[in-house]
Amino acid sequence: MMTSTRAGTAGSAVQALIWAPNCLRLLDQRLLPAEETYIECRTAAETAAAIHDMVVRGAPAIGIAAAYGMALAAQGTAEAVDEAERVLAASRPTAVNLHWALRRMRDVWTHSHSAEAMTREAIRIHDEDLAQNLRMAEFGAELIAPGARVLTHCNTGALATGGHGTALGVIRTAYAQGRIAQVYNTETRPWLQGARLTAWELMREGIPAKLIADGAAAHLMSTQRIDWVIVGADRIAANGDTANKIGTHTLAVVARQYGAKFMVVAPSGTFDLSCAAGSGIPIEERTATELTEFRGQAVAPVGMAALNPVFDVTPASLIDAIVCERGVIETPSTEAVRAIISTH
Amino acid sequence: MMTSTRAGTAGSAVQALIWAPNCLRLLDQRLLPAEETYIECRTAAETAAAIHDMVVRGAPAIGIAAAYGMALAAQGTAEAVDEAERVLAASRPTAVNLHWALRRMRDVWTHSHSAEAMTREAIRIHDEDLAQNLRMAEFGAELIAPGARVLTHCNTGALATGGHGTALGVIRTAYAQGRIAQVYNTETRPWLQGARLTAWELMREGIPAKLIADGAAAHLMSTQRIDWVIVGADRIAANGDTANKIGTHTLAVVARQYGAKFMVVAPSGTFDLSCAAGSGIPIEERTATELTEFRGQAVAPVGMAALNPVFDVTPASLIDAIVCERGVIETPSTEAVRAIISTH
Repeated sequence: MMTSTRAGTAGSAVQALIWAPNCLRLLDQRLLPAEETYIECRTAAETAAAIHDMVVRGAPAIGIAAAYGMALAAQGTAEAVDEAERVLAASRPTAVNLHWALRRMRDVWTHSHSAEAMTREAIRIHDEDLAQNLRMAEFGAELIAPGARVLTHCNTGALATGGHGTALGVIRTAYAQGRIAQVYNTETRPWLQGARLTAWELMREGIPAKLIADGAAAHLMSTQRIDWVIVGADRIAANGDTANKIGTHTLAVVARQYGAKFMVVAPSGTFDLSCAAGSGIPIEERTATELTEFRGQAVAPVGMAALNPVFDVTPASLIDAIVCERGVIETPSTEAVRAIISTH
Repeated sequence: MMTSTRAGTAGSAVQALIWAPNCLRLLDQRLLPAEETYIECRTAAETAAAIHDMVVRGAPAIGIAAAYGMALAAQGTAEAVDEAERVLAASRPTAVNLHWALRRMRDVWTHSHSAEAMTREAIRIHDEDLAQNLRMAEFGAELIAPGARVLTHCNTGALATGGHGTALGVIRTAYAQGRIAQVYNTETRPWLQGARLTAWELMREGIPAKLIADGAAAHLMSTQRIDWVIVGADRIAANGDTANKIGTHTLAVVARQYGAKFMVVAPSGTFDLSCAAGSGIPIEERTATELTEFRGQAVAPVGMAALNPVFDVTPASLIDAIVCERGVIETPSTEAVRAIISTH
């Protein structure tokens, strides 16, 4: 098994991370959708550079790549493993999954000092993520009645995870089960992950989909039936308030106004029970140039100020269901979250 | 007066249309914000080409430019005026103001066959638009309490009109009166008129403003106090339902959810009393490439489908006030609209 090519391919034609003996192949997401090119990482330093340079993005995919980076380092000396942990940890400082994966790999190293055990553990992290996604997809798809018309935001697919995806994984499985008639996906400004990545995944699998501008949400939901808005999550508070890509909260408000249901799909590790409510989740703001420039060209006047938050927080009251690998939290509340998350 | 340079400059530093004897100078809006270059039109054909090529955009500004184009043609033969009317009418087929301005110029020509009368009429059309905007700005500003924080969408400023602007005109006047503490403006996908044009106007006049992604509306309105969302209109039905740039309806839904008031600013000519409600307003859909490409570069996979409506229709029930040059229609309804629009 260790020497076979690994990829998050079950239920998906998209292979974003491929493990070959002593080599991690990463689909270069910066070049999508124009080019499908793989970058080969043979050292932890190369893996860290690929994470830093956004060859791979999406919190679960970053964690898995970092785990494979540690496995590559374990072919060398104990010093090499220490150094790998350091450079990988610094590659994307705010990614929670990255640090979680590094801690898990460190523990295996401490107990085994075995390159083989490290490779097995990285593959296990990859497999577990894919398995969680497949389980969530089954739970989520069950909520969707045949003939459904759904809207999704950002990229939560095979590219962002160990394979299959979270919100996009639900859409994949529901489509395979014949439940989905039409997908809409937002372009997701300012980074356009929807236009660049989700559109690419949907087209590749032949799922009928149309791209919309983020602002067209009310037009879409008021003039056509949309059954579900389905999104991922970056962090979920104990009461179900959900931080996710900027624009999610706006979609949730519009969905409630026009009778579309709102589903969040995220593994149980996304819950942060130390946060009682969404107001406790810090929102990172990024540089104005992400709005004022496009691929280096000015689109707004030089020096224009901007408010450019990475995430927003959708209140639990606007969410109909949170799907994790342990089951479905309907009408999320502190009690409903606790019932699923704390009891395992 | 005819020989002086004309420009929509009252209350505004921005001069988008300047009339010099036998020459219409148009600020080339395609090059904003990078360059401020004027194009000189000395014939109706040059004016029609400038309208067609989007040197000038915004329904009122297009109507004014077309009127000046007819005045340029009137320097020549009767055949030249007929030909001018034809090429100008074809320059942007769906612009209502364009056809209205051409009819008005045609009537003057029929009655006078005078180049001087034609120039006077074009200047009058320009002056009337500016005067309407200044009147609307006074009415709208009165609704805004000092210290206000407002959000606007698309470009409704001096660039889109005969000067000052509609929604942005209200913001200009309210700022000059010391009522505005902070403006936010959406980038307005897919054409980015907010990022390119509104940001340019706001920066030029030193009005404190921040650009946001369209999808950030709920984040903004739920985490900070926004007093008013202020937008223009392309067409208003008899019951107050308002067609405006795609994204407007989404902002109105979010504004209602988070307690921001919603103001539409448009001259009385924008009302179409033959449309009982917004469902009767046809919504033009444009090519997918406006979403899938940016300045000729693919941002989504080639062949990706898109839903790309130009406008959306905000229901009157989400609008707190419609401001026109005749006064303010509060809590719009068929009766409230009739009271202001039909009685003049």
